[in-house]
Formats: sequence, structure tokens, C-alpha cells
Amino acid sequence: MTLDAFFYPKQVVVIGASNTMFNLGATICNILKHVQYNADVYAVNRKGEDVGGCKGYVSVLDIPGPIDLAVLITPAAVVPKFVKECGEKGIQHIVIESSGFSESGGEWLRLQQEVDTYAQQYGIRYLGPNCLGVLNTDNKFICFYGALPGVTMFSSFLNIPTGEVSYVIQSGGIGVLVLDAFRTDVSKVFKMVSIGNKADIDESDLLEYFNSDNTKVIGMYLENIQNGRKFFETAQKVQKPILVFKVGRTAAGAKAATSHTAGMANNDTIFEHACKQAGILRLQSIRELHSLPKMFTHMPPLRGKRIAMITNSGAFGGITADLLVENGLEMASISKATQEKLKQTGTLYNTANPVDLGPALSLQAFLDIYDILLSSDEIDGLLPVPNVWQEIVIEGIVELIDLCKKYQKPAAIYIPNAVDRILTIRTKYQIPVFESLEEAARALAVSHQQYQFLMKKSQ
Amino acid sequence: MTLDAFFYPKQVVVIGASNTMFNLGATICNILKHVQYNADVYAVNRKGEDVGGCKGYVSVLDIPGPIDLAVLITPAAVVPKFVKECGEKGIQHIVIESSGFSESGGEWLRLQQEVDTYAQQYGIRYLGPNCLGVLNTDNKFICFYGALPGVTMFSSFLNIPTGEVSYVIQSGGIGVLVLDAFRTDVSKVFKMVSIGNKADIDESDLLEYFNSDNTKVIGMYLENIQNGRKFFETAQKVQKPILVFKVGRTAAGAKAATSHTAGMANNDTIFEHACKQAGILRLQSIRELHSLPKMFTHMPPLRGKRIAMITNSGAFGGITADLLVENGLEMASISKATQEKLKQTGTLYNTANPVDLGPALSLQAFLDIYDILLSSDEIDGLLPVPNVWQEIVIEGIVELIDLCKKYQKPAAIYIPNAVDRILTIRTKYQIPVFESLEEAARALAVSHQQYQFLMKKSQ
Repeated sequence: MTLDAFFYPKQVVVIGASNTMFNLGATICNILKHVQYNADVYAVNRKGEDVGGCKGYVSVLDIPGPIDLAVLITPAAVVPKFVKECGEKGIQHIVIESSGFSESGGEWLRLQQEVDTYAQQYGIRYLGPNCLGVLNTDNKFICFYGALPGVTMFSSFLNIPTGEVSYVIQSGGIGVLVLDAFRTDVSKVFKMVSIGNKADIDESDLLEYFNSDNTKVIGMYLENIQNGRKFFETAQKVQKPILVFKVGRTAAGAKAATSHTAGMANNDTIFEHACKQAGILRLQSIRELHSLPKMFTHMPPLRGKRIAMITNSGAFGGITADLLVENGLEMASISKATQEKLKQTGTLYNTANPVDLGPALSLQAFLDIYDILLSSDEIDGLLPVPNVWQEIVIEGIVELIDLCKKYQKPAAIYIPNAVDRILTIRTKYQIPVFESLEEAARALAVSHQQYQFLMKKSQ
Repeated sequence: MTLDAFFYPKQVVVIGASNTMFNLGATICNILKHVQYNADVYAVNRKGEDVGGCKGYVSVLDIPGPIDLAVLITPAAVVPKFVKECGEKGIQHIVIESSGFSESGGEWLRLQQEVDTYAQQYGIRYLGPNCLGVLNTDNKFICFYGALPGVTMFSSFLNIPTGEVSYVIQSGGIGVLVLDAFRTDVSKVFKMVSIGNKADIDESDLLEYFNSDNTKVIGMYLENIQNGRKFFETAQKVQKPILVFKVGRTAAGAKAATSHTAGMANNDTIFEHACKQAGILRLQSIRELHSLPKMFTHMPPLRGKRIAMITNSGAFGGITADLLVENGLEMASISKATQEKLKQTGTLYNTANPVDLGPALSLQAFLDIYDILLSSDEIDGLLPVPNVWQEIVIEGIVELIDLCKKYQKPAAIYIPNAVDRILTIRTKYQIPVFESLEEAARALAVSHQQYQFLMKKSQ
């Protein structure tokens, strides 16, 4: 099965889009016009009126020619009826964004069952219900509702550059947060799917799909796992990094999540163990969904555990050593011979690990030091903490990135400044800098973990 | 003993300040002129030349009138000589900023011993060596070297507003990072001391001093503890919140720290236990040094463990519940009666905890909901996650802060947006907003921990 029709539809109908005030379907028509999405887009509503420049009809059955994707955003009660009509029209892919299904419990379960009956009858695959839909930066297909050009909080997902990280998100709010954070980061989003109640297409289907397209890194925010066996078996086959944040580490968390999107609580200990078996990188916070991918998109993998820390600011050696050890890595031991080489680059405060450059050094000295450390077989990766006192420090970081590629060893860089300054420098120079030492150490740890997963999977 | 002379000196001499290029002492003279520090400032150098508008002398002994504070920033080898001269002049307080003492090992230990001999002979108390000195926002006394008006990276500690949080920092770099972060936060720094090798005045002396002045919250970054018994006994007597980040949780971290400032490694398990006994809040990251104080400066204490989570964005209920439980708190159970009251404020998505307001509500509805929750005896504190879709959401937050004071219950507020937007909103409206859910949950946890410490200490 390919899910391409959900990401590259040639004809789209938005069922429930009208010119009524606050109509959410209309925001989808408006977005697709705004980004000049290159396909036929129709609206279906009671009056058959055009919406945001999209031709309107009373029923999908009235639309001439084939339709390969329907976006359904109507009250829950009428969703089954429209699914049936889509089936009659020969539409085989639907995004059901309407809420009020099994997440609401009780009588609403009946609606869900009706939807499933029609879907089966007509061979329909659907996303949702209770979801925000699809965003594809590759061709600008967006059916997230609520996005309004010009409204700051919602404009994060309009006209964003295309990237290499694809997401499965079981909550629209988290998706928007991730997109918003990428404005000031070097990795970019490729595709994002908000899966909601995932009554049909689930995280495993999307994992398989993202394994087959140009996605480089897969990120997932899950409130539950629909089918554990299917999920872990699929993950086993995926060589790309899979970063998963799962809610419900505690019973209270699992309970709170069920009121939001329908789903059963999962035993967290079993989940943790299965992730390790299946080669899934488990995340410790929502932030890591957007902070860690750059370690995979911008740096070679960490093949060993021995890290050299380099600073021109003195203070951070002890903290870094603590963090490396707590993350299962180690402070590399730098031999006398390598220390001798380091000494020849200038006046260093400390040539053992942490290497302390002191405040005043030339660009060449920075580059020589990076080269000596990366080329040494005593060291597997770097954690540089350069204080950006002068422009040359940034120039050094830019060249360090090339050196990392040359030697196929990664550097997780942290600039010891307030976060607003870090974001400004990162955005201006497009360098993969982390926002804290904790994040940099974690990035090295997940890079090494993924390397170990790959070794195991390729055996 | 009072350390007031280090923070409110009436006559200061900077020994080692000259007009040589890159002279660090000169930067201190320049700062004190730049901030128009209201006292006599002198320079001592070989030529006896004036520096940055400060009258110059060849020796402190030549300066007419008394001096109550000397700042020493010369090569290590001549420090003992100058300490002796200070003693002869009757100067009883010295900040020794020079490095190259016991942190360098070997022969340098002899210099340290000489300094101690003279200090004892003349009754001198000193800070350092190997430190950045003192910053007092109250009267603008600053003897941090290296600060240059106009140079962005160093200007964080010039002309900053005065606040209520005082710091003891065993590394200048961390101090500058903390000051830089406060530019975009609601808490502000009162006093900061960089203690370096703390061969005389140590963290315990400063803890005692900050307990006696107008400091409201005490923050500490320590690479080692000079005298464990003295430290914990002092802490026992302090009722103000003491936030401590200590390096050396692992052996590698302790080892790396010793190359930076002189100090013995301390057993971390013993330290952890002693903190709990002495009522010290142990921090989990450097960030917490500047992110957590606002919970104490801007919110009442958390007296119980039952937290209500409120959101208009759906997604964050499960994550919050996980974090609260992992932080030793709990999701408050909201009774049917209280839920009935909540229902009368408008169309809520969920009236149980997490309370989900849905996207569109009036300011009055927000305030009614905050009031119902804070006035309920089922709830000890709030964790609101308001998505700032409209201006009224921010107005609601501003009024929430007053309601927290009225009911003497705290709210740890998180806005689910990218961090740059959070910083902008926090700075513009001066509201105590946290940068992540993790941070907000931690803030509630430390607030409650401090409350429990106080209950124990006041028995």
C-alpha cells in the first residue's frame, strides 16, 4: 500500500467548507489557494457555494471527473453519510478531521462503526478522525485547518522550506509547536501527519511510508500505540532514525491522554524494552522532537563512546563530563603525543580533556585543534563549547562542520550564551548548535545509539 | 563578620590596572567610571599612571586616606607582595582575581601559602584567587574584569536592573551566562559573587551574608564544597530558598572540574542526602539557576501536591500528568460540584483535570475558571498551558497572577510556543512564564519542596 494520495493528491475536495463565519473547512481552501497548490480543489457544502476561489458543489457526486482525496471537516453526526458518498464517487482516500468520535465515548462509538463499515465496503483508507491532517512541504499540500495567512501563531506552517524530517503526530497542537520551533533551527520538516484517533491508518502504516520516501529522520509523538506488534515489527525493518516521544510513562499521564485522543494505555516498561529491541530512539521531552534531528541531518554518526570536549571558556568541563558519563559516553583520554601536537597550535590553558583554548586564539589555531582532535584515533566525537567572543569563533564552527564530514566523526556544538543569542546565531549562520549542554550530550548519545541499532539491524 | 565592604566599598583601589593594551584591570576602572560608581576609585601600577579617569599610584601606600577594598589583578607571582602592602595600608578586604595559584598545582601552592600568611598577619579577608569578583546591582559596584561597554557579549552585566536573586558562582563563565539569560526573564539579579578557588571566603560565608541582606532567593554554582559541615550547618539556619547546582555527580565530572578551579572531589551521594537534610534545593541543570527563581519571586509557595492543569490547546494533558507524577506531585481530582461550576463559565471541552477550555473563550470565562480552581479546596496549585491565540489570553495570565496572590496558591505557567515567542511575550508583559512543560513541573516541585523545608526548619 502506498499513501501517496494523502501527500500528493491531484484532485482534492474539502467537504464541509463554506462561507459561514469561523468555518474551518474554508481555512483549508484558503491555504491551498494561498500556497498556490498545483491541483484541482473543490468545496462541498449545503448551498454548493464556491469557497476561497474553490468551485463549490452540494455533493461530491456532482463533481465532474475523478477525485483522489477528500478532506472531511463536518459535524461528526454527518461524517458516515459523507464517507458513503465518497465511496460511491470512487474516492479511496479521506482525511477525517471532524472530532466527536470514540474519543468522546458512549453513543459516538456508533458513528465510528458506521464509518468503518462504509470504508470497508468501498475500499477506503482514511486518516483520523479527530486530526489536523497532512502537511507536505515538498509540494506545499496542506490540509491543516485553522491556518490563516497573516495570523502569526498559525502562519508557521505556510510557505516553510522543505526538509528531511517527517513526523507522525497524535495531536495537532504538538505538530504546530514543532513547526514553530523549526523557524530557528537548521533541520526542516519534510512531511507531517496529524493522525488523531487513527481508527484506520496508524503510526505503523506511516512509519512504513516514511521508510519508502525521501525522509531522512522520522519523528513521532504518540499518546498510545494502536498495535504494538505491528509497530515494532515495522520499526525493525526501518534503517532511518526513528525518534519517538510517548505519553503515558505514568498511569496518570495515560489516563489524561485518553480524554484527548481515543486510545488504550500501554504498559510503559514493556514499551521501553520493545523500543530498544526494535531500534527506536525514545525521547525524553517534546523539545527533543525538534532539537535532536539536526544531529542526524547535519552530522556523521558517532561510532564510539570517546568524546573530546573543547572550550575557550573554562567553566563547562566538569558539567560536560558529568553529562557524558550519565549518557553512557566517556571523556576521551588524550595521549601525551596528541597533547604535544595541541601545544604547538598556541598557548592553550589545558591540553588534556577538557581541552581549554583560553580566550584569545586565531582562526588557524581553532582549525588546527579541531583537525588534531578529529584525526586522532583516540577520539570518536567532539563536544565543542566555543564562546562566541569574536567572529572568527563562528568561522571556526563553519569549517568544523566540513572537518566532521571529512573525518566522519560528529560534533555536538553548544554556545554558552542565553538562548535568544543562540537562536540568532544558529539562524544567521545555519550551524547545528544546541541550546544547552544537556541537549548536546543527549544528541551524541542518540547518535551513538542509532549507530549501534544500525550495526545490529544490518547483521 | 559582615562582608559589606565587598559589596558597598567607599574607596576602591584596582592594583594592576594600567594603560597597557589588553590590561584587564583597566576594564574594571572603565566599568566603574561607566556606571558612575559613587566612590573613590584608584589605580596602582608600575608607572603610577591614571587609568580610565581613576587616579594612579605606584603603591597603595602612596594613596592618601583610607581604602576599604582592593581589587588585585596582577600576575600571580607578585600577588603576595601586594597583599602585604595592602595589610600595611590597613586594607582589610581584597578581591584576588589573578589566576595561577593552587588550581595550577606544584610550585604555585607556595604563593597561596604566602598570601594566607600575610592575610592572617594583617586580619585580611579575601575573595578568590582565580575569580571574576563581585557584581552588586543595588549600587552598581562591579569588579568583574573583561566587561567592555559596547561589546555585546560582555555588556550583559552593565546597567542591569536590580532584583532579588543573589548568586555564588564558582566560575565566571556560568555567572555571565546567568546574567545574560536574565535579560529576557522576570526575576533579576541582586548580587553575584564569583568565588574562584575560595581560599579564604567560601560559599558558606556568602550564604550567611545573603541570609542577612535583602536577598530573596540564593543561587549557587559549585564545583566543590570547601567545608561540608560548615556549609550544611549554615544552610540549616537559612529560611530563604537555596538553589544549588553542583558539578561532580560522576568521577569524571569531579576530575574535569579540578583542572578549572582548585578543589577536592566530593562524594555525590552524601552531598545529595545532606542537601535534603539541610533544606537545600538541588538543581538538575545550569538553566535552572535562572529559570526557577521566578517561582519564588513571583508566586506564593505550593503548600500541597494537588495540581490542576488548564489548557485551551488539548494536547498537553497527558505529558503534564506524567511530569507531575514524576516530580512527586499529583493531578488534582476535581469533584462533580466543582465541575458543575466550571461548566457554567462557557462551553468547555473537558471539566475534569486536565481542564480543557477549547479554543474560543472570553476573558471573563478565563478569569472565572481560574477563580473557581484557585478557590477550590481540592486544588493546591495550577499548571496553566494557555496557547496565546488572542490578546485576551495574555490579559487573563496577567490577572491570574493577582488571583494567585489573593488565594496564596501558585501557578507555573507554560505557553506552548517556540522559545523565541515565549521570550518575547515574557519580556513584553513581564509575566512569569516557563520555557517548557518540564520546567513548569519542576518549578512546582521545588516550590513545594521549599515549603516542606520551611515547615521542618520552623519546628
